[in-house]
Amino acid sequence: MKFSKLVQPGLDKGVKHTGMMSEDPTLIKFSIGNPPPEGFAVERIRAISDRLIAEEPNSLLNYGSAGGRDDFRDAIRAFMNRRVKVINDEDIITVTSGGQQGISFAIQAFCDPGDVILCEDPTFMAALDMFRNLGAKPVGVKMNDDGIDLEDLEKKMQMQPKPKLLYIIPDFQNPMGVSLPEWKRKEVCRLAYEYDVPVLEDNPYYELRYDGEFIPLLKHYDEHGMVGLVSSMSKIVGPGMRCGFVAAPGSFGQAIANLKYSADLHTTTWAQRVSCELLTHDMEKDLEGLRKLYEHRGHKMQECLAEYCHPDVHFTHPQGGMFIWVTMPEGTDMDAFLKELDDNRVVVVPGKRFFTDGTYQTPSFRLSYSLATDEEIEKGIRILGDLTKKYCK
Amino acid sequence: MKFSKLVQPGLDKGVKHTGMMSEDPTLIKFSIGNPPPEGFAVERIRAISDRLIAEEPNSLLNYGSAGGRDDFRDAIRAFMNRRVKVINDEDIITVTSGGQQGISFAIQAFCDPGDVILCEDPTFMAALDMFRNLGAKPVGVKMNDDGIDLEDLEKKMQMQPKPKLLYIIPDFQNPMGVSLPEWKRKEVCRLAYEYDVPVLEDNPYYELRYDGEFIPLLKHYDEHGMVGLVSSMSKIVGPGMRCGFVAAPGSFGQAIANLKYSADLHTTTWAQRVSCELLTHDMEKDLEGLRKLYEHRGHKMQECLAEYCHPDVHFTHPQGGMFIWVTMPEGTDMDAFLKELDDNRVVVVPGKRFFTDGTYQTPSFRLSYSLATDEEIEKGIRILGDLTKKYCK
Repeated sequence: MKFSKLVQPGLDKGVKHTGMMSEDPTLIKFSIGNPPPEGFAVERIRAISDRLIAEEPNSLLNYGSAGGRDDFRDAIRAFMNRRVKVINDEDIITVTSGGQQGISFAIQAFCDPGDVILCEDPTFMAALDMFRNLGAKPVGVKMNDDGIDLEDLEKKMQMQPKPKLLYIIPDFQNPMGVSLPEWKRKEVCRLAYEYDVPVLEDNPYYELRYDGEFIPLLKHYDEHGMVGLVSSMSKIVGPGMRCGFVAAPGSFGQAIANLKYSADLHTTTWAQRVSCELLTHDMEKDLEGLRKLYEHRGHKMQECLAEYCHPDVHFTHPQGGMFIWVTMPEGTDMDAFLKELDDNRVVVVPGKRFFTDGTYQTPSFRLSYSLATDEEIEKGIRILGDLTKKYCK
Repeated sequence: MKFSKLVQPGLDKGVKHTGMMSEDPTLIKFSIGNPPPEGFAVERIRAISDRLIAEEPNSLLNYGSAGGRDDFRDAIRAFMNRRVKVINDEDIITVTSGGQQGISFAIQAFCDPGDVILCEDPTFMAALDMFRNLGAKPVGVKMNDDGIDLEDLEKKMQMQPKPKLLYIIPDFQNPMGVSLPEWKRKEVCRLAYEYDVPVLEDNPYYELRYDGEFIPLLKHYDEHGMVGLVSSMSKIVGPGMRCGFVAAPGSFGQAIANLKYSADLHTTTWAQRVSCELLTHDMEKDLEGLRKLYEHRGHKMQECLAEYCHPDVHFTHPQGGMFIWVTMPEGTDMDAFLKELDDNRVVVVPGKRFFTDGTYQTPSFRLSYSLATDEEIEKGIRILGDLTKKYCK
């Protein structure tokens, strides 16, 4: 049979995205961006879940409100605003199936096929896949060690036809691990308003800061209703919950709510209720434990990179999150380097996977330390460092 | 600020859809299509959930496979095929967030804006909303008391430009409660193949048959890979799980899998695992209990309708599911009738909500008995019946 219209095959990518996780125990996997299981609040979740199923089975098992439960949305608002105001009273919060569904909705809300989305270059590869699968054209903006390059951003915002959306990860960016300083956040908001390009702030790693001071989310600096925020419980409760949210102003927020209604009505109620209880009780304690985990692994990997790599190798110094971006000198034979690294049983993600131009021969690659033990970091980065010495001449 | 493209407002509809459920206890609500809470396997779910969180916290809380867990997909296949073969070995099963997400994916897979989707007229109103929100144009096919009218279906399949999809609910149809006899199922499959129009079979109520013999699902009769099946755990476990699936052949199934990957990666793992355990253990016992509940309420409502309504009132005789479709004589002042019914505290869903032509002044309305007690049915249908005597002259 023939079908009149079919989407592009993309499942292989999906498998790689959730995968890159061969079960071979001799591999040292710095490729996986999963949260560490030892950070999950398993016993708390178990107790909350058991109580909820006993006390409110009908509300858990029957239909709930389109767009999310009010108690959970209130909890999200209070949690996000506990340091400074991020979500305004007028913003509409929609509970999504992970942050990823929120990104997908924002693309659908703003883009017709062929429309341009600006994004950091490199950026989150699943977002790139979504842009393309939904027919939008990602146009990359240069990155520096302190996040998006403002000059290049302004130039790209002036493109004709006008970009429909800026997608940006301001904290502990995936894949670079870098964060935007406050003055740049203000500038991004100003440029968005000046050029009338709405912004989707993707900020899943925000709470995982282990060095430096918390900088308010980009959305905090938005004075003109230009910024929608997508985040999730994935990194602070667990991604298997598939519990995320979009908080966005006016018609932006309304569009997301409408799309959620059309897509699947609401997110699994159990996941919303358990997340709500976690957010409103002892969350700070969970987060402290998580930050310690990430701090230890992040510092250890940075120390080992400094100790074992050739001095010409550049790597970022994240203050949180789970990623480090390593850049070899221009002209390095990356195919050979990555192959030899692979032969030595150390797995990283080649940088080209994250660029808008998939053919770009970047001398960079991504490391993740979220799942790595001390021994793996010590051994894996030593192997990697030795190889950089071989390839940097 | 202005946005270049925004979807149509539809949230009010969402609220009404999940709502129509004022908490006023003096209302007799025959409007709500929710499963009865007393049918939920609460204690089984509680025990399974507790065991799973204790035994496999990482697999429950971390990322899972795009498109669904293999164990759950195997369980779905075995469960659906336990009477006769419905899901073929080559079919691709994608776990979705409720059946609704599966419908939305099928629309996205087959339809560009303006494309025609054929559907029963009347049909599931949330599906109609989705067709419109995603830019497709629903074209209705006439209905009889034994389901879709084949002559009209063939005529509509010959439309130019060609319809991209037939959306059909073969068992205990929403809103009419009617089911397709076997010979019509074969004919629908034959016509789909002859005119090359793929079919999305939506069959959420299938297991809720309480009268007559089980007729194999429409998909069972598909010999040419024309039919994709969407169904869910919503009516047999609980809709708050948001756990549905699409089983579809070849590129149809692949397209759905791709869309799931792009949309939200996978459905909440807890919901998949709990549903999997329920499906593979003692499900038949749960279903017997459920069928008894629906049987009692369905029979009671049909008996009361026969007893209290004016003889010119026509109503369907469902053999399962939760809906009865009541039709007043042509020319009845339905606005006045429905208003007076409402004034008498009996809530039904006006028929026009279910038609492709939203302005059609149908003399029909939908009753649901899934949540109704004997007293409510007795009292509510007596009020309704008395009113039909007033309006049928």
